[in-house]
Amino acid sequence: MAKPTIPKGTRDFTPEQVAKRNFIFGVIKSVFEKYGYQPIETPTMESLATLTGKYGEEGDQLLFKVLNNGDFLSKADKNELANQNSNKVLTSISKRGLRYDLTVPFARYVVMHQHEISFPFKRYQIQPVWRADRPQKGRYQEFYQCDVDVVGSNSLMYEAELVQIYNEAFERLGLEVTILVNNRKVLYGIAEAAGIEDKFMEMTIAIDKLDKIGMAKVKEQLKLKEIDDAAIEQIESILKVTDLSALEKWFENSPTGQKGIAELKTFHKYLDSNKYKNEIKFDISLARGLTYYTGCIFEVKTKNIQMGSVGGGGRYDDLTSMFGLKDISGVGVSFGAARIFDAMEELNLFPTSVTTGLEVLIVAFDEDSHTYAFAVLNKLRAANIVADLYPSPTKIKKQMKYANARKVRYTILIGSEEMKSQVLTLKEMETGNQVGLKIEDIVHHIKS
Amino acid sequence: MAKPTIPKGTRDFTPEQVAKRNFIFGVIKSVFEKYGYQPIETPTMESLATLTGKYGEEGDQLLFKVLNNGDFLSKADKNELANQNSNKVLTSISKRGLRYDLTVPFARYVVMHQHEISFPFKRYQIQPVWRADRPQKGRYQEFYQCDVDVVGSNSLMYEAELVQIYNEAFERLGLEVTILVNNRKVLYGIAEAAGIEDKFMEMTIAIDKLDKIGMAKVKEQLKLKEIDDAAIEQIESILKVTDLSALEKWFENSPTGQKGIAELKTFHKYLDSNKYKNEIKFDISLARGLTYYTGCIFEVKTKNIQMGSVGGGGRYDDLTSMFGLKDISGVGVSFGAARIFDAMEELNLFPTSVTTGLEVLIVAFDEDSHTYAFAVLNKLRAANIVADLYPSPTKIKKQMKYANARKVRYTILIGSEEMKSQVLTLKEMETGNQVGLKIEDIVHHIKS
Repeated sequence: MAKPTIPKGTRDFTPEQVAKRNFIFGVIKSVFEKYGYQPIETPTMESLATLTGKYGEEGDQLLFKVLNNGDFLSKADKNELANQNSNKVLTSISKRGLRYDLTVPFARYVVMHQHEISFPFKRYQIQPVWRADRPQKGRYQEFYQCDVDVVGSNSLMYEAELVQIYNEAFERLGLEVTILVNNRKVLYGIAEAAGIEDKFMEMTIAIDKLDKIGMAKVKEQLKLKEIDDAAIEQIESILKVTDLSALEKWFENSPTGQKGIAELKTFHKYLDSNKYKNEIKFDISLARGLTYYTGCIFEVKTKNIQMGSVGGGGRYDDLTSMFGLKDISGVGVSFGAARIFDAMEELNLFPTSVTTGLEVLIVAFDEDSHTYAFAVLNKLRAANIVADLYPSPTKIKKQMKYANARKVRYTILIGSEEMKSQVLTLKEMETGNQVGLKIEDIVHHIKS
Repeated sequence: MAKPTIPKGTRDFTPEQVAKRNFIFGVIKSVFEKYGYQPIETPTMESLATLTGKYGEEGDQLLFKVLNNGDFLSKADKNELANQNSNKVLTSISKRGLRYDLTVPFARYVVMHQHEISFPFKRYQIQPVWRADRPQKGRYQEFYQCDVDVVGSNSLMYEAELVQIYNEAFERLGLEVTILVNNRKVLYGIAEAAGIEDKFMEMTIAIDKLDKIGMAKVKEQLKLKEIDDAAIEQIESILKVTDLSALEKWFENSPTGQKGIAELKTFHKYLDSNKYKNEIKFDISLARGLTYYTGCIFEVKTKNIQMGSVGGGGRYDDLTSMFGLKDISGVGVSFGAARIFDAMEELNLFPTSVTTGLEVLIVAFDEDSHTYAFAVLNKLRAANIVADLYPSPTKIKKQMKYANARKVRYTILIGSEEMKSQVLTLKEMETGNQVGLKIEDIVHHIKS
């Protein structure tokens, strides 16, 4: 029989990995809920009509498509089949695809449930997504996304709130971060100020790389896009600005830029009503790629470790219009769960309690004491102690080996002596200390 | 633009549904963990080689298959394509399928991870599965399964433990149940005692329906399978037995039946060391269909509501041999999450706290008080109170409508008066009572 395998790009999660990942999700969820966000879940399979065309041409290629059930070829075009034209045949043999992100299904959800939703709708969603990317180290075809959004209001209060959520979640996780803030309108303002509104996209793509390639290379790229030297000089000067007030004079003739500044000021009016453990920094070069953002944008970087961003998001003005519902403004951020996992692993930030297995393993010496030990086990569990009993009174060495593998804090040893005297031997595994106690005192000892 | 839809047989989960479902999973998980079980997760997509042939011919038909990426037709046989032979083409255009249950992936996991696992391996797994069943009321193509198993030991201690888990989980959920217990060897013993070992399967299928169709119809079915009248009379007599000791005389010449009784006695030796809120009952007609069980079997029925079983499971001796690993005995049970959900809904068993949205919504009267209100919001959240602020100082009626939609317990009203005096109006929504308090006193009032 061939050894079983799993598809490339997928993976099993061991108990330790699930426990650590659920610790991260648990912290993030509890913060989301404290801030009034509610969970939703959408199906793993969406209609291909919902997914196709939403992620660009490359995205369409990376969608996992599910074969129609039954005699799937019966409805396919005979000629296209004979020509082995995969693209032409696809639509007739597959009408479902796997969730590619949480944003498009969320937009679909809002449109389909619009009449039962009370807006502003504050939702979070933590579910896996699938992409047929070439698998490589740290990149999987199945991975969790963790999104939090509010739709149906354009209040900049929510921008402040989402930054507060970042701050509190990362503080609780113990991961020090810098939260970078910018506004798409400020970026457009730069193009306006430099008189190159028609090259806004090209400019943004170049600026987005500033922290990776440096100013000299950014200027080269701007030049390649046929932006003239005067404009490039202007852009360079503006990119040196580190605070909002200094930006105003540059945007004197840029209405969009002024609007961006005003938005950031309102955002700060809300934000500055509190103190934050993590640094929150205006970064005029932050662009968040070629996404659908229209207002404030955010990105989160770890402080004590070199790593891509562990979070990002922003304001979008027209998400649900792809499904026919116009004028629903929204803002949201996401947490990069896999990178947060890696960072916390590398910095040793997971509390030991997360992976502690059993508190107690009972070790019995013979059949009689094994039955007695099961009654002892009942008493420990009745006191809500995570306890177990080795399933048979086999060699002590074997039972102790299991205790170590399960990272047990205490063992309780029970033989005929202990049964008679009711005094059980409690052994602390780390120190090796042993003490004889009645079961009630053991419960008390462990709980205190 | 066409209105978006989701594939038939799938569904969105609203915030209330997710909260209720997570309440069930949360209770069950905490019981699993207290009993020393650890979570694992397996990928959504498994190799079709892993899945195919494991669920019978019907199961193979109901597997969702995922199309290979890229030019998927390029490797298909030209002739079979032209003949539109779906079965022949399938293997060349699809090599992955969606998880159909949690048992086969668990067996695969145990085999692939056998060298890192410390046996006995106690695992639980709560993940969705997919089946291309014809959708109907209450039956979906995507649904959660919730399994708990221990493999690598044949100790009957675990049978007792799993019944304890059922008892405690349903007690915590508030759902009264009866846990039915039988043993496959006892069923085989009936066939042995009646001298119809060669008709064991046919007999089991008929007996399995006893509670639905009654003894007269069971006897008809046995007759149809050409079981003679003397044997049928013998079977009828044995099926009237309700306790183990009365069974012994019937199994005097049935070695397998005797073994079944011995197993059930050992099971009870462990079980009887504790008291149980729910009824645990020996049911000699319990068969659990034509499954792979070889020892004890279990089924859970709700007491106060008519409904199919809300749980079931048993001992299997050879699960991992399908992947080449022999002699790994295991025992496990599952919780029928969807039915438990429906039963709890119908009996109104969900604690109101599960669906309580916000504790507090702050209502501001104008722009200035809105900014002030955000600072008040910070203070509530700093005290871990689930609080929110309506995003704009719009009409009070509209804000109050939102408060009701979010099932808010308190509102806090803030206008210019309140800003000046620092005395805020706290309104309890259910009673309509209002009281003027400083923010510190509001925090204290809500927390106590």
